[in-house]
Amino acid sequence: MGNQPARIYFDNAATTSLDPVVLEAMMPYFTEKFGNPSSIYSYGRESRLAIENARKSVAKILHAHPAEIFFTSGGTESSNTAINAAIHDLGCRHIISSPLEHHATLHTVEHLVRKGEVTLSEVKLLPDGHVDLDDLERLLAGSTEKCLVTLMHANNEIGNMLDLHAVGNLCKKYNAIFHSDTVQTVGHFPFDLRNTPVHFITGAGHKFHGPKGVGILYVNENVQIQPYIHGGAQERNMRAGTENLYGIVGFAKALELATEGFEADSNYIKGLKIYMMEQVKQALPDVDFNGDPLGRSLYTVLSVSLPMTGKSEMILFNLDINNICVSGGSACTSGAMQGSHVIAAINNDPNRVTVRFSFSKYNTKEEIDFVVAKLKEMI
Amino acid sequence: MGNQPARIYFDNAATTSLDPVVLEAMMPYFTEKFGNPSSIYSYGRESRLAIENARKSVAKILHAHPAEIFFTSGGTESSNTAINAAIHDLGCRHIISSPLEHHATLHTVEHLVRKGEVTLSEVKLLPDGHVDLDDLERLLAGSTEKCLVTLMHANNEIGNMLDLHAVGNLCKKYNAIFHSDTVQTVGHFPFDLRNTPVHFITGAGHKFHGPKGVGILYVNENVQIQPYIHGGAQERNMRAGTENLYGIVGFAKALELATEGFEADSNYIKGLKIYMMEQVKQALPDVDFNGDPLGRSLYTVLSVSLPMTGKSEMILFNLDINNICVSGGSACTSGAMQGSHVIAAINNDPNRVTVRFSFSKYNTKEEIDFVVAKLKEMI
Ligand SMILES: Cc1ncc(COP(=O)(O)O)c(C=O)c1O
Ligand SMILES: Cc1ncc(COP(=O)(O)O)c(C=O)c1O
Repeated sequence: MGNQPARIYFDNAATTSLDPVVLEAMMPYFTEKFGNPSSIYSYGRESRLAIENARKSVAKILHAHPAEIFFTSGGTESSNTAINAAIHDLGCRHIISSPLEHHATLHTVEHLVRKGEVTLSEVKLLPDGHVDLDDLERLLAGSTEKCLVTLMHANNEIGNMLDLHAVGNLCKKYNAIFHSDTVQTVGHFPFDLRNTPVHFITGAGHKFHGPKGVGILYVNENVQIQPYIHGGAQERNMRAGTENLYGIVGFAKALELATEGFEADSNYIKGLKIYMMEQVKQALPDVDFNGDPLGRSLYTVLSVSLPMTGKSEMILFNLDINNICVSGGSACTSGAMQGSHVIAAINNDPNRVTVRFSFSKYNTKEEIDFVVAKLKEMI
Repeated sequence: MGNQPARIYFDNAATTSLDPVVLEAMMPYFTEKFGNPSSIYSYGRESRLAIENARKSVAKILHAHPAEIFFTSGGTESSNTAINAAIHDLGCRHIISSPLEHHATLHTVEHLVRKGEVTLSEVKLLPDGHVDLDDLERLLAGSTEKCLVTLMHANNEIGNMLDLHAVGNLCKKYNAIFHSDTVQTVGHFPFDLRNTPVHFITGAGHKFHGPKGVGILYVNENVQIQPYIHGGAQERNMRAGTENLYGIVGFAKALELATEGFEADSNYIKGLKIYMMEQVKQALPDVDFNGDPLGRSLYTVLSVSLPMTGKSEMILFNLDINNICVSGGSACTSGAMQGSHVIAAINNDPNRVTVRFSFSKYNTKEEIDFVVAKLKEMI
């Protein structure tokens, strides 16, 4: 294979590798420490302690109270819980959202609309894909019903980021509930939830080198909601079911490592993104970038737009043959084949092809050089 | 410590240890094989293949079609999904259930009743705690609305087992939907779902030496339902969210091992249960057993009833001090301290104390001897 690396993984917005240090922290719970956290004997209480320590650690990092953090099976469940709670428990009858949301939000909202429980307004987007905050205020001001605003913190396909504080303050002004899908930012950015006007945020362990099958829902202490999954008294009666003990321990460990490494890792990954932008621009004719890559944007995501040609249409296929992992649209939803609703909403140009590159601390400039050379060959 | 074993774990109905062979099967997915099953490149497709192979294996063992098996985060989520689907998608307006159900069923049903979406009828119990099938038929025959019958296959506290075929045939006769919580029996008994008249059954990996945080929902191919958790297209649009890849692989492996070992393990564990019954009867005055321990009963569970005395009230505490793990009520629901709704429903005698012993293939007669000697000392 000569200089060819075994595999280049540029799809870290879809999922990330598990950090070996996280796995190490999880291991005791796969072996000797298997007690049920709900059992009253000391062996069960050890498991409960592990969960409560994980909760405290997550809360501390996000500047929340431990009582505001609930462990779930992932980002999708967290968003389902928050959105349903806003409608069923908090009296919202009008949802304001955007066409760029992840399916975890879109499909949950659509289901409630179909059942006739809410009306939906879509906020306008600016040309660079950011939410038009003036339009958001118009919608809020014009609503006759209590609103739920559900807008993602960062878009997983194009990387655009929302100003949580600006949106949260608008929601406050109009007495709306604010849910933000923060799956792409928890573990990637610092949070100060005590000073952020948001009612619900979400997180998924596997997006920042933690385990799959575990997530969090933050519920601001000022709102009282019912569980979405009913049963036992786990998670202080807010999420029933025997806890994913290893997952919870792994989530907390991964968040701790991400927080410790934030300064260095985010600078390093941002460097990779900018380097790739430069290299791609030099190597490929008529290349463009979706969203606002140098503005309010994830440092992990670069959405490249290429002119549609016979060759660019085959690009995902050809990258795969070369063992290079990237996404067309959003891998989270098997959506790549059916076209991306996000790309369609920001720039419905049938003559362009989108490739999303998303980076982690494990990627290198050499990998970028290799991929750009391959792209040049292919186009 | 001399002859004292380090810990005696007699709480296998609450959760079980992870089989090291299961962990071994999961390990590659914690390390090199982390691709997102929804990604279209070959590295993601390997993960998808692992999931589809797991599904096929589970389906084959349960004698179901792979398209009838959905992976979830656990037994609780599975029951929430089934019960909500029966109401929202299958037109059921009347639920028939029993007071002995797990909270995953009880609380889900209560929530729907509180919202005014259904009425609830509780089927009568026979003196030994079994469901009165004549009363069930009376309720079905008398219902003016389409019914959901939700009755557990085996009770986690007292071990009583339902005749799935008899109940299923009654449901068929009266055109009712039948959901059975089989969390205590999947991985413990053979299933032949192709020849069992049931619409929904549930399973949880951690009850048979598989991982926590993963379960299954079986949905009979003759019913069409909507997802409970909305979002991406995972699980053929039936359960959104990035899959718990390791959990799913572990679930299937644990079920395979349980199936291979069924003959030998079930005989061995049944031997332990009967041995413990005999020893306890000899050792303790006025002891009794809840449910129908030698009849239709889990071979894993023995629910011991003792006269209430100052000493027996302290028994859970004293067993814990001796590093012996057992439950009062059901550990799954942190319920031990608040008293068991199951024991209350079958035998509301304030002058008795209940201790549940539940066994696995890893337990031994020596452990039973040790525990019975300790019990004798304590009482
Ligand atoms: C009979 C029964 N049903 C449902 C459950 C819930 O399963 P889980 O806690 O894995 O969601 C349990 C145990 O917890 C159980 O014993
Ligand atoms: C922005 C965003 N929201 C929600 C999700 C859903 O998270 P999960 O699939 O872990 O449930 C994802 C990724 O899958 C995502 O990128």
